[in-house]
Amino acid sequence: MDLVTFDEFKKLDLRIGKVISVENHPQADKLYIIKIDVGTEVKQSVAGLKPYFTPEQLINKTVAVVANLQPAMLRGMESQVMMLAASAGSEVVLLTPEKPIPAGSKIS
Amino acid sequence: MDLVTFDEFKKLDLRIGKVISVENHPQADKLYIIKIDVGTEVKQSVAGLKPYFTPEQLINKTVAVVANLQPAMLRGMESQVMMLAASAGSEVVLLTPEKPIPAGSKIS
Repeated sequence: MDLVTFDEFKKLDLRIGKVISVENHPQADKLYIIKIDVGTEVKQSVAGLKPYFTPEQLINKTVAVVANLQPAMLRGMESQVMMLAASAGSEVVLLTPEKPIPAGSKIS
Repeated sequence: MDLVTFDEFKKLDLRIGKVISVENHPQADKLYIIKIDVGTEVKQSVAGLKPYFTPEQLINKTVAVVANLQPAMLRGMESQVMMLAASAGSEVVLLTPEKPIPAGSKIS
């Protein structure tokens, strides 16, 4: 991949979010509608995590999110924020802070 | 902050790295020289983590890194990769995968 400058990296609003609700997407088998407290407000994520996590495994979890992505419509639902996860083969693993830290905490 | 597009986000090579060594920076009190296995190779990070972590707290840890930042010289030592950490007040917390996953695993 090409190199990115530190200024390009800094454009991203990476921060800690807390999952506050998880619902099935009404029109897509693999998607959840996830509400995430990002500190300043609650934002919605449409995420393809249903094959990997139950709602109970996600709720109340603190996760790393990209909070300033341009909103996108996914099967008719707006996604405003993206949870970061690592993947290897068929495995998907969330990125979480090693110790508790408040929602809204900046990541850099 | 301004919104970023998904294409801008995708320029970043975010992945899982494993810390393999931690040494004091020879010319800076607060900086460590950290060698990180990013899957394809071992890269060096110059990071201001010394006030927050002992070397023992970092070694063998799997962390989230930006693997394609333009290298920068920090007090005469080259930093090629950046570990992601969340901060709140005077607290700094690393971002780690919730479950073990190999170094080099892509984050998205």
